[in-house]
Amino acid sequence: MGMVKQTIIGIIGAGDAPVEERNIAQEVGKEIARNGCTLLCGAMGGIMEASCQGAKSHGGTTIGILPGTSKTDCNPYIDYPIVTGMGHGRNIIVASSSDAIIAIGGSFGTLSEIAFALRLKIPIIGINTWDVSSDIKKAETPQQAVFMAIELIGSNT
Amino acid sequence: MGMVKQTIIGIIGAGDAPVEERNIAQEVGKEIARNGCTLLCGAMGGIMEASCQGAKSHGGTTIGILPGTSKTDCNPYIDYPIVTGMGHGRNIIVASSSDAIIAIGGSFGTLSEIAFALRLKIPIIGINTWDVSSDIKKAETPQQAVFMAIELIGSNT
Amino acid sequence: MGMVKQTIIGIIGAGDAPVEERNIAQEVGKEIARNGCTLLCGAMGGIMEASCQGAKSHGGTTIGILPGTSKTDCNPYIDYPIVTGMGHGRNIIVASSSDAIIAIGGSFGTLSEIAFALRLKIPIIGINTWDVSSDIKKAETPQQAVFMAIELIGSNT
Amino acid sequence: MGMVKQTIIGIIGAGDAPVEERNIAQEVGKEIARNGCTLLCGAMGGIMEASCQGAKSHGGTTIGILPGTSKTDCNPYIDYPIVTGMGHGRNIIVASSSDAIIAIGGSFGTLSEIAFALRLKIPIIGINTWDVSSDIKKAETPQQAVFMAIELIGSNT
Repeated sequence: MGMVKQTIIGIIGAGDAPVEERNIAQEVGKEIARNGCTLLCGAMGGIMEASCQGAKSHGGTTIGILPGTSKTDCNPYIDYPIVTGMGHGRNIIVASSSDAIIAIGGSFGTLSEIAFALRLKIPIIGINTWDVSSDIKKAETPQQAVFMAIELIGSNT
Repeated sequence: MGMVKQTIIGIIGAGDAPVEERNIAQEVGKEIARNGCTLLCGAMGGIMEASCQGAKSHGGTTIGILPGTSKTDCNPYIDYPIVTGMGHGRNIIVASSSDAIIAIGGSFGTLSEIAFALRLKIPIIGINTWDVSSDIKKAETPQQAVFMAIELIGSNT
Repeated sequence: MGMVKQTIIGIIGAGDAPVEERNIAQEVGKEIARNGCTLLCGAMGGIMEASCQGAKSHGGTTIGILPGTSKTDCNPYIDYPIVTGMGHGRNIIVASSSDAIIAIGGSFGTLSEIAFALRLKIPIIGINTWDVSSDIKKAETPQQAVFMAIELIGSNT
Repeated sequence: MGMVKQTIIGIIGAGDAPVEERNIAQEVGKEIARNGCTLLCGAMGGIMEASCQGAKSHGGTTIGILPGTSKTDCNPYIDYPIVTGMGHGRNIIVASSSDAIIAIGGSFGTLSEIAFALRLKIPIIGINTWDVSSDIKKAETPQQAVFMAIELIGSNT
């Protein structure tokens, strides 16, 4: 039996994102599932919930890094809830556990995750997100974002 | 689509455990897989590696909460490596992410996880482990330990 | 100008300790202040508050490692509140930031801190606390506890 | 005896900042000391070390939130080393423990701290730093930065 490690794509974005962004997130989640990758996120609503819903609708697997102390405080599309009790402090775990990250829109919490990912040299793909570095690769569509993420993970290994 | 949350059993024990304890851990891992539960642990060697090896040999799923900053620093039987970069500080995440915990033998690190589990009222089953509370239920065999864990999770929900 | 690092003694114990233990904690706090050391604790009530009150009554300095997210949630005798937002997860910071630890009585939270201190080889002195290792040195009085702590820090450097 | 809580100003910036920025940081540290405030930072080199050196040269008090696991890994101008063992994860503690933050220049680590401070509504003053929000108040001189920080803390209470 060889290594069993799964490829993990992190999805970051606001907990109260507008419907257009949530629709994009849902498509990104579906595409991650179609490609056999695992979706990891911060376990709450908005972008996080929409992407997990997309992934689960296509038989994907989802991991949520919870800010709170109870598994009841997470969106209903999380297979594996990881309970940190660290509040926003869990953002570095979201970043560092992802093999690549797709950022959709974004709040200040998202910006902290982008900053950590840039610091840790984890590949980031952005859809209408913070423009703080040329290391954030821009994608136009959900399909392109997931395609780029998988390609960057391959060249990173 | 209803809730998709998986049942997670945490395995805690020393990273340098003797072969007898590692054998017990391996059997516990197999039994967790046979029962369709997910195994979560601290991702390193000893009890953690042996239990993951057991789970993977029977088609189970494993999550590792890594102390370090790189996915390369984890045992080879981890499906989902969660990178914390928190060192021993990750022990509270091991405890709080488990629906029940099985402690096998144990070092001071294990004792910290037991203490957190007792504080958080997470069910603990012990096999030759720290005897610091009557809330640690004693099991004689790997099969009994997993059976008790699943039963305690059921009555806890 | 040479090194300015202060000697830090950590005080650990229950947030709802009985009055006899709180009285001991207050005397320990006074003795830490008399010896020119800094007191560090988990910032909450019980043993933590009593020891800080003792230290401040004798012109000492106090640091609190807060579990919550706001400086308003700490006892009134803390000079320097460090806000972690990590809940019980802050216990490892309490342990690892102390040059020596004095444990008074204790709950499961205290046990987690003792376990971390034993793991990290930080000297521990105990007054009626968890008896989980011969590395916990027993003291009979507050004065003896602080004397032993300072002596162990000296031989540790 | 009333509340003893000290006013804490956080200084954030790169560990390998150019000499011009380090000179600004040193002046900021002196000014914090002159105003009787406590300086808190990430305990490493560059902006962190320069500001602590400035504060200590004027009798100030300094707290360092260490990323590593040992007090030997911090700059020599720290009075109170807080050992987190959390790596970059300690950045949220730097942000949330500060009553106001002064950002000087900055790397991706600094950006993560700015993002947390914006998220937590902690006042930020910037000197040639990331321009990601109008909530970052711009200062021209070290004196002005500290003056603004103290004023914002006052109006925040």
